[in-house]
Amino acid sequence: MTARLLTGIGRLFSPTAARTVDHVEDAVVALDGTRIEWVGSRTDLPRELRDRETIDCEGRAVVPGFVDAHTHLVFAGDRATEFSRRLGGETYESIAAAGGGIRATVDATRAASRDELVAASSARLDRMIGAGTTTVEIKTGYGLDLATESKMVDVIEALAAATPVDVVTTVLAAHATPEGTSRDSYLELVMGEVIPMLAGRAAFCDVFCDPVGFSADECRMVLDTASAHGLGLRVHADQTGRAGGAEMAAAMGAASADHLDHATAADLEALRRAGTVAVLLPGASLTMRLPFPGGRAVWDSGVELALATDCNPGTSYLETMPFVVALGVLEMGLSPSEALWAATLGGARALQLADRGVIAPGMRADLVVLDTDHHVDLSYRPDGDHIWQVVAGGRPLRG
Amino acid sequence: MTARLLTGIGRLFSPTAARTVDHVEDAVVALDGTRIEWVGSRTDLPRELRDRETIDCEGRAVVPGFVDAHTHLVFAGDRATEFSRRLGGETYESIAAAGGGIRATVDATRAASRDELVAASSARLDRMIGAGTTTVEIKTGYGLDLATESKMVDVIEALAAATPVDVVTTVLAAHATPEGTSRDSYLELVMGEVIPMLAGRAAFCDVFCDPVGFSADECRMVLDTASAHGLGLRVHADQTGRAGGAEMAAAMGAASADHLDHATAADLEALRRAGTVAVLLPGASLTMRLPFPGGRAVWDSGVELALATDCNPGTSYLETMPFVVALGVLEMGLSPSEALWAATLGGARALQLADRGVIAPGMRADLVVLDTDHHVDLSYRPDGDHIWQVVAGGRPLRG
Repeated sequence: MTARLLTGIGRLFSPTAARTVDHVEDAVVALDGTRIEWVGSRTDLPRELRDRETIDCEGRAVVPGFVDAHTHLVFAGDRATEFSRRLGGETYESIAAAGGGIRATVDATRAASRDELVAASSARLDRMIGAGTTTVEIKTGYGLDLATESKMVDVIEALAAATPVDVVTTVLAAHATPEGTSRDSYLELVMGEVIPMLAGRAAFCDVFCDPVGFSADECRMVLDTASAHGLGLRVHADQTGRAGGAEMAAAMGAASADHLDHATAADLEALRRAGTVAVLLPGASLTMRLPFPGGRAVWDSGVELALATDCNPGTSYLETMPFVVALGVLEMGLSPSEALWAATLGGARALQLADRGVIAPGMRADLVVLDTDHHVDLSYRPDGDHIWQVVAGGRPLRG
Repeated sequence: MTARLLTGIGRLFSPTAARTVDHVEDAVVALDGTRIEWVGSRTDLPRELRDRETIDCEGRAVVPGFVDAHTHLVFAGDRATEFSRRLGGETYESIAAAGGGIRATVDATRAASRDELVAASSARLDRMIGAGTTTVEIKTGYGLDLATESKMVDVIEALAAATPVDVVTTVLAAHATPEGTSRDSYLELVMGEVIPMLAGRAAFCDVFCDPVGFSADECRMVLDTASAHGLGLRVHADQTGRAGGAEMAAAMGAASADHLDHATAADLEALRRAGTVAVLLPGASLTMRLPFPGGRAVWDSGVELALATDCNPGTSYLETMPFVVALGVLEMGLSPSEALWAATLGGARALQLADRGVIAPGMRADLVVLDTDHHVDLSYRPDGDHIWQVVAGGRPLRG
């Protein structure tokens, strides 16, 4: 790996543990292979670091690579027709009853070959990376049987092997109950076979704790099994209604509770005490024409906040974190700095990755050079293309 | 101009006068220089049109080029700092009182040379065109004196001469009262000098009829003068409060009434009877964190509806019509077809241009090939890059 310098940084923005964003003007970052070696003002750059291959940012702003902590990136087919029908007034429930919803994607994903899934997913991953994502979590959950859940992990591993960005695998077998099976017998399969078989190849287990998904008690059993197999815990919590998901996530010490559209102040307080990160997903609200989750309330509650794309073919076909940041600011009441924090360090906290999300020595060399001099442009110009360069694990990916 | 064929069109979508969108599958479009010569199903293509230079769309969808009927594209400086301050809780009024708001852009635009303005504006225009805009209206209004309003028209003419897309010029001298002048003496200048001097170089006159702008009576006088000088009429109507702008626009037979955030049902009925087009600007609501104007109510009232970017540095720094379409669907309650209609034929109606916005023989050869097989993707995937090819006046602009 080449040792590199990023010079001419007009403003370098780095999130802090205190939930603020520091900035340095006229900054330089020195990279030693895949890690950041030195960060500071140009005038303080040690002499021995000066003679390196240089990327001149020409006054542009630098932020950490985005951490997209909640995606369903691997799937086959799309659900544009279902989206149109929902806009026309059909309910999610009636569409699901007619074979749409998650089950439509399950059918398509089961029918697709591993190579087809890799091709479709890597096109999406490329667009994510092009928009500055350098760490992406990817969930299973469109298999709902051992063979397809396992195929999805194969695909995630193939993507991870071929991409310069870091991929985190989550087993979401408890996403829905498959057609023709009882909830109980499916949960038995999840706990008895899927989790034991896949635990060694994943970092996290997730569950869909929701009035239209599984109950808090069912989810607790699944997560107990996952814990026993060494997996970290995540929870789709209280999206379409309150099902005790946030409360349960906090009680289980989950890494994150995601969605939270129907979480109460008491739920947020429980998450804060537990150190569970709230992952908010504005793309789902936008796509479903629903009220946005209360980003302002979550931030003010003291809970650590992450923003993510929720990339999926049913309810949030987003790929780009800058757009998620813009929604955080324009639709959820966050300040630009808070939204940037949530899209970088917040995501890293949600994935329990201590080596990214800030720009400091020893951290992964994951950086985005914006094509502007301030990150506020991400929401000031919400349809702009703001990415000038992406550096992932020390590798510049453009030009 | 080369005679061309667009072949392999999976679905061709063309708005109709009845406010619907027709579609043809497996379609072909024949272009004869700058105009459309023939449109239909591949199997019906006349033999004599077959031997032409061909663009194979490979199953993609084709829609008319977007018509962006309301922009303030020509300006210097930006107002990102003001945007941040407003997010932090400062009001537009207090920022304006401290020299921000429109006046900040007026100062920067007065200070910029013609060439600087051309360079900054043509970068924005290029991004618009890259996203499928083939007709763009551009307003003056950051001069507020004869010399600078005239310089803005120079810039618009320079942009028009250098771009393959069609540019429509609007004089918006009555945008605000300049510092150090009384309203009355400024309006005297507008009516006595600015409009008479610039009328021959513009198609329309616009006024800012709003509680924070000019009264309906003041605007009526300005528009009477504009009419006498042969200009068509447009009105910024009732954005921050109801000032009788829509009513006045209807009474004057204006081509369009724009914004309409505070228009009543009676206002809409007046616009409908007058045949005045409603131009809605969701970017301003998004950027100002205000409720979106009622696109559904406007559509259902029977008023013809256009959607536009409102591209400006203060309240809506948008450049791309696909994003405006997505906001129309996801935030204003329009269907994908209605939003497409509003962004194409609706824009053409607002600009009183009868030769575009539909894909039919004799129309301008302004077409967008989407990188997908259905226009619903514009809102289904609101952060996607959906443009595969843009044809403006018969010229393919990519590749």
